[in-house]
Amino acid sequence: MSQRIEEALERALSEVDAHGPPQVGHAIRYAVFPGGARVRPRLAGAVAEAIGGAHAPTVDAFGASLELLHCASLVHDDLPCFDDAATRRGKPSVHRIHGEPLALLAGDALIVLAFENLARFAAPSLCPSLVALLGRAAGAARGLVAGQAWESEPSIPIEAYHRAKTSSLFVAATQGGALAAGQPAEAWRSMGERLGDAYQVADDLFDACGDGDGKPAGQDAVHGRPNAVELWGAEGAVARLRERVAEAAAAVPECAGADGLRALVVHMAERLVPASLRQTAA
Amino acid sequence: MSQRIEEALERALSEVDAHGPPQVGHAIRYAVFPGGARVRPRLAGAVAEAIGGAHAPTVDAFGASLELLHCASLVHDDLPCFDDAATRRGKPSVHRIHGEPLALLAGDALIVLAFENLARFAAPSLCPSLVALLGRAAGAARGLVAGQAWESEPSIPIEAYHRAKTSSLFVAATQGGALAAGQPAEAWRSMGERLGDAYQVADDLFDACGDGDGKPAGQDAVHGRPNAVELWGAEGAVARLRERVAEAAAAVPECAGADGLRALVVHMAERLVPASLRQTAA
Repeated sequence: MSQRIEEALERALSEVDAHGPPQVGHAIRYAVFPGGARVRPRLAGAVAEAIGGAHAPTVDAFGASLELLHCASLVHDDLPCFDDAATRRGKPSVHRIHGEPLALLAGDALIVLAFENLARFAAPSLCPSLVALLGRAAGAARGLVAGQAWESEPSIPIEAYHRAKTSSLFVAATQGGALAAGQPAEAWRSMGERLGDAYQVADDLFDACGDGDGKPAGQDAVHGRPNAVELWGAEGAVARLRERVAEAAAAVPECAGADGLRALVVHMAERLVPASLRQTAA
Repeated sequence: MSQRIEEALERALSEVDAHGPPQVGHAIRYAVFPGGARVRPRLAGAVAEAIGGAHAPTVDAFGASLELLHCASLVHDDLPCFDDAATRRGKPSVHRIHGEPLALLAGDALIVLAFENLARFAAPSLCPSLVALLGRAAGAARGLVAGQAWESEPSIPIEAYHRAKTSSLFVAATQGGALAAGQPAEAWRSMGERLGDAYQVADDLFDACGDGDGKPAGQDAVHGRPNAVELWGAEGAVARLRERVAEAAAAVPECAGADGLRALVVHMAERLVPASLRQTAA
């Protein structure tokens, strides 16, 4: 699975590599490689595999598109007018290396590529529903842009905020995996939402505990954002994370590989608990 | 045609209006309404009409998507890290009114909406080719992002720069209009390229002469960008604009409404010549 994800990302970037202005191409590659855990494409792939009979090029393309959108949101969220983050994934943020203009353009390019990639590599019959799914997950109504934009409102409705900022791509991952395997998407929403909720708590834990994936800690406090650890304490947050994961596992619809998928969800979840908290709250 | 374009843009924004964080919704509407001449959707519509038998919802949706991408590029190009433009379309730029974070997010949202809109409203069978067309016109290989990114390179290859920055959406307009009418796109590329070239010269003329559409004049000189007036003088640039328009008219492929479309192209072109130069160089 890992290799397929990296290869799909390479295919998505091939036109820019071949024809684009070199510097924005470098900024785009810097934003995409090396990746984090590639959780969203892994999830889409795991759902498609659990259902069985999926169109493999569509699964790979859709997974890459999810990751490109995720990378775009990281690059733009790190910009000086938002978090002004110095580091990301354990290395300097894109704008610290490539400058603000190229970081902004790299983010724009990654959004475009996420959609273009589906038109190039997904099964044409699935293209409209996958583009719609990706658009909803990315957009200003309830997607990534909405999540970031809630931070500009005078008060932040915490559920809508988290659903938009984090869960949206997880829902797209489970639903897109189902679509690629020829199943209706709706039954797979709940699993994605619960996993997204769990991941949001995990992100808050990493922010509060500082042993995250190369992001500076304490950013939520600095930017006045709601944080689960502030609300429930570290152990309370870990308990909540495990609850959400159990709900996500329970929400896996019946399918050929449902048991394996449930086990995978629980396994993924343990990686989400910061190492310093794994024993205390287990 | 005008009313259909505005209605299609309203439809594209309906989900954000209904569900999105209010402030980013306001910034998006501010970027889209009131519009400029809506040249790109008009062009796509004119091509579809000249061919005849087009799927009207697809023509309207694709035109709106072109305009949304165009608006996105204006909002991002005006940001402080690029032109830091105070005005656009005769009113303060988006970031001057809504602040930099919401302007950046509005641009991101407009890119997403351009694609999502096709999935929502275009004929599903045309969705893959239209998404591909839009992606190419927007992206970092040869589209709008590439155009802006060439400005970050140590030297700017002028033809690739103009093709990416301006012609790309004109090519998408003529080719998308053809696809919506069930014709292969390739025959319509040349017309779009020539019109794009003409429009680029017109943009340079407005920049140099200062009677443009509410943008501050002299920005090319300030930012060290190539400008046709600097290269050939104002009269030389007008002559070149008219040459490109004549070539665009000549490049209209044979179709039921070819003569009307050729006349429209020439008519559009006269509007592109700044008023102060219309007589002198006619």
